[in-house]
Amino acid sequence: MQENQGTVNRRVLLSRRPVGIPQASDFVVDSAPVPKAGPGQVVVRNEWLSVEPAMRGWVNAAQNYSDPVPIGAVMRAFAAGRIVESHCDQWPVGVPVTGMFGWQEYALLDPKAIKRRIEEDDLPLSTSLGVLGLNGVTAHYGIFHVLKPLAGQTVVVSTAAGSVGSCAGQIAKILGCRTVGITGGEAKVRLCTDHFGFDVALDYKSKDFEQHLAQACPDGVDAYFDCTSGPVTDAVMQHLAIGARVAVCGTVSIPNWDPPPLGPRMERTLLVKRARIEGFVILDHADKDASARADLANWIRQGKLKYLEDISEGIESAPDSIAGLYRGENMGKRLIRLV
Amino acid sequence: MQENQGTVNRRVLLSRRPVGIPQASDFVVDSAPVPKAGPGQVVVRNEWLSVEPAMRGWVNAAQNYSDPVPIGAVMRAFAAGRIVESHCDQWPVGVPVTGMFGWQEYALLDPKAIKRRIEEDDLPLSTSLGVLGLNGVTAHYGIFHVLKPLAGQTVVVSTAAGSVGSCAGQIAKILGCRTVGITGGEAKVRLCTDHFGFDVALDYKSKDFEQHLAQACPDGVDAYFDCTSGPVTDAVMQHLAIGARVAVCGTVSIPNWDPPPLGPRMERTLLVKRARIEGFVILDHADKDASARADLANWIRQGKLKYLEDISEGIESAPDSIAGLYRGENMGKRLIRLV
Repeated sequence: MQENQGTVNRRVLLSRRPVGIPQASDFVVDSAPVPKAGPGQVVVRNEWLSVEPAMRGWVNAAQNYSDPVPIGAVMRAFAAGRIVESHCDQWPVGVPVTGMFGWQEYALLDPKAIKRRIEEDDLPLSTSLGVLGLNGVTAHYGIFHVLKPLAGQTVVVSTAAGSVGSCAGQIAKILGCRTVGITGGEAKVRLCTDHFGFDVALDYKSKDFEQHLAQACPDGVDAYFDCTSGPVTDAVMQHLAIGARVAVCGTVSIPNWDPPPLGPRMERTLLVKRARIEGFVILDHADKDASARADLANWIRQGKLKYLEDISEGIESAPDSIAGLYRGENMGKRLIRLV
Repeated sequence: MQENQGTVNRRVLLSRRPVGIPQASDFVVDSAPVPKAGPGQVVVRNEWLSVEPAMRGWVNAAQNYSDPVPIGAVMRAFAAGRIVESHCDQWPVGVPVTGMFGWQEYALLDPKAIKRRIEEDDLPLSTSLGVLGLNGVTAHYGIFHVLKPLAGQTVVVSTAAGSVGSCAGQIAKILGCRTVGITGGEAKVRLCTDHFGFDVALDYKSKDFEQHLAQACPDGVDAYFDCTSGPVTDAVMQHLAIGARVAVCGTVSIPNWDPPPLGPRMERTLLVKRARIEGFVILDHADKDASARADLANWIRQGKLKYLEDISEGIESAPDSIAGLYRGENMGKRLIRLV
């Protein structure tokens, strides 16, 4: 079975191994024939492509939590779309699906490669890549299973205007915590307070950032949801409360970890504050995704959880999009619209 | 009620605020009259004084987990002795006790200041300050409640020949783990393997230390009991296994934390390895001391747990004893014998 479709599949290939942040020049856009489904296979037409900071790690040679994308291969990426050709009864044409379908217009797949059928028909398809995708699920896991803050505690979130950070802050607020968001620039500070409901938002680019942070956390930081590492984290570590927990979700402020850059040693703070810092990779916890997504979708329907999408048009915008994230130019979850 | 005793109480007073490691010149030994017990009070004659790395933190001005010892006061220290004068029926003369009685020959106490009556009458009184004191209880807590290693996992211990590290390694071995001890110098390496039963012991002073560490941990480090921080820890962090846990028990390799020295940032390793690093202060967990001590005493009686004491004679040896610890000159738990 097959729907009407084009004849060309435009794809973004990794053309060389980036050092540090992948730039537009590390990719090429090519055109291939639209693939045909073989026995048991499906073809998905991608409607939305995802862009996220973790993609840096997926292409770098340095040790990471997945093997690097091979040179010449389609760039690994989450995408959402609909099945347009199917030789598999369980996955008929028209079904909305999401998974790691890559930066391309059409993906030929064994249905095992489909992460899930998108069930939230009342919400936009694009939410499956952001607030109902790994971003939201990451925020949910980090708050509920790593940080476990109690009502009334102070929760600090870095990259607070981003798709993970904004969700983490709102979940902490739903739990009754006091939330302090850290972001870059006045526009994002306002976004954090006015749109995402942080109690306080701070601009790490301000020369008085450290002083503002101290004022915002008079009783110390009970939990820190960190996507940045670097100087922002160094500042937060100085204000940990006794028994504080830090969740390392990402390290976007550090362009290159090979070798690791130097920073203030943490061991004494961890000891004196009886504190814990812990990294987590959401892909390890897929068993918790469905219940997290149910929480998130309900909070969206109840108006308790807001999200923001930063949409670029067309596959040509993909190669520069990771570098753009690291330039901090996006407001909200970065997505590429194909259809 | 009063036993025969001397008339002079020699005491070690903190004479100035040390920066970094406290030296002999930061203390003075004075003589005061032996105190007399008032109503409800007791006088303890100290038989053993304890010396430990944490004492550096007790006298430094930098933020720590207890208020600093005031200038002119008796140096804070654990001690073990017997009650020699008592105006309190529950604490009669002759009872062996331990607590923070200070670096002095006699301590005038409200009985509430007694940490415990020493019940292990079949074991030497000095064990109450080492393997059955905070050292052993710290090792027990770090292994059972922070690291929680499974049988067959690789457990690395720094300061492995020391009183905490040697105990931590032996407990891990009792749990069926593979144990790798890190210590300084050939004599301590032999002590770790031949006396304390580590599967492998490494000399961090060896020029091939990093290579030996890699060879000793071919499947990575599942748990790291750390008392050092610094370059030894940096080396171990490079070999963490997925899901590794690190317990920060002390930071003896860093002489001064004000400000914190620089080291390789850990965030990326923690993220990629889904690892955790956590500080703990044993004084927070006094509710677990008695059961830990029961385990430790039984293991000693069964010949499964060995300990070593490094004994100096007389209170005059106290002022230089902390600096001596940091010079690495002791073999085993450092104690000062007074009686």
